[in-house]
Amino acid sequence: MGIGRAEPNLARAKHVGAIDAYTTCLEDGVKDADVTVVSTPVTRIVKDVMQAAEHGPVAGLVTDAGSTKARIVAAVERHDRGRLSFVGAHPIAGSERQGVANAQGDLFEGRVCVLTPTAQTPPDRLEQARSFWKSLGCRIREMDPESHDEALAWTSHLPHALAAALAATVPTELLELAGGAYRDGTRVAGSDADLWAGIFCENRQALLHVLEVFERQLAACRTALQAGDYDRLRDWWTAARTRRQCFDGLEVSSG
Amino acid sequence: MGIGRAEPNLARAKHVGAIDAYTTCLEDGVKDADVTVVSTPVTRIVKDVMQAAEHGPVAGLVTDAGSTKARIVAAVERHDRGRLSFVGAHPIAGSERQGVANAQGDLFEGRVCVLTPTAQTPPDRLEQARSFWKSLGCRIREMDPESHDEALAWTSHLPHALAAALAATVPTELLELAGGAYRDGTRVAGSDADLWAGIFCENRQALLHVLEVFERQLAACRTALQAGDYDRLRDWWTAARTRRQCFDGLEVSSG
Repeated sequence: MGIGRAEPNLARAKHVGAIDAYTTCLEDGVKDADVTVVSTPVTRIVKDVMQAAEHGPVAGLVTDAGSTKARIVAAVERHDRGRLSFVGAHPIAGSERQGVANAQGDLFEGRVCVLTPTAQTPPDRLEQARSFWKSLGCRIREMDPESHDEALAWTSHLPHALAAALAATVPTELLELAGGAYRDGTRVAGSDADLWAGIFCENRQALLHVLEVFERQLAACRTALQAGDYDRLRDWWTAARTRRQCFDGLEVSSG
Repeated sequence: MGIGRAEPNLARAKHVGAIDAYTTCLEDGVKDADVTVVSTPVTRIVKDVMQAAEHGPVAGLVTDAGSTKARIVAAVERHDRGRLSFVGAHPIAGSERQGVANAQGDLFEGRVCVLTPTAQTPPDRLEQARSFWKSLGCRIREMDPESHDEALAWTSHLPHALAAALAATVPTELLELAGGAYRDGTRVAGSDADLWAGIFCENRQALLHVLEVFERQLAACRTALQAGDYDRLRDWWTAARTRRQCFDGLEVSSG
């Protein structure tokens, strides 16, 4: 059952077989749902989770797909109904594109989904959340909401900030001379602005810290450049390359 | 005719049909060459171009594929034989991978190749260079070597520096939680360290300037983050996204 605001989008999703039925009324949509997945921008998730929890079956699970977790989980757990239904989730998959036209049936295959249960999460809800995300092909990792947000500041929010800063820097009239490094390095700058303004605001303290560390790395490059120091530039690059290769290794081993 | 240092690599290239024959002796390899393409790291190009020009036919063209042009072109043009044979080129195509195992037959199809003739370049050599690179599928652009280096500092050298700085920043133990933004944003950090230390040294002044402009863009993001200013973050992201979309438009129109 697809629940959304815009009927034409929902009709398209039904037409391509991504959903079986749809409604623009959240209350109706969730009333028999064993599992409700809230996939709205982080600024809306708490409100939508609370509505789904209030109008869904008592034994139903409500989970989400938000890129930040700390504020969301804390806010939901302030309400009994939310606390009893919700397990925070962040499947690390997706792209800068939106809409059912960009849907992929195997999007979650082999990807990590982070669950962020707390001491207040009912164990049977957590078990439901594990099997639900696993059934989509995800590998489950569990951590507390704050640790999730700190980690994702490094692995996702920083790369997004840099992609946007790079896209904002390169003059349009030179883009004809841009190649793969620019293309890949700026790809996610094509993502929705409201979505990312929301994520950045939610995780601003962690992101500010990570930006500081990044700027020290860039300063090391700049200092070596100023000195015209080939050896230092090569060593700096080699250290970066070695870390990058760890990631390739992980991708290979996780299929 | 493939010319290289390591016979096993050359044998592999012949085996897969990338070359018809090979030699490890540059003098032998170029002696009947209508066109010699020097595809060595920027730190070696001048030496290799000069050798190819001296030992190749008088009417032969020597061109290159280096990512920087100003110092290389100036150094080659200091010698008569070099000046009479050489047209600097930079085909904007490639990846972080090396070796014939990563070769692609259509690598240059639809890509821009910048030629950097000067007032001293013989017009018939320039014409040869245009048809050679066009015959590989390239779209030709011409500019002076200094303008090339300034432009590429924005469109290629900055994205490479950021990819390496990002790869150097993210702690290895968190890489399991990295997704597509990290993967694409750091891809070119997998490139050869000597290659990029050389390019950065050659173009250090331009790259230092461009890094300064980039850091102002990042500072704009940081200031908005510090203030927790959603609207300013959204506007900053939107400006970046709009520029990025110009690039997508160019890619579509160039096929």
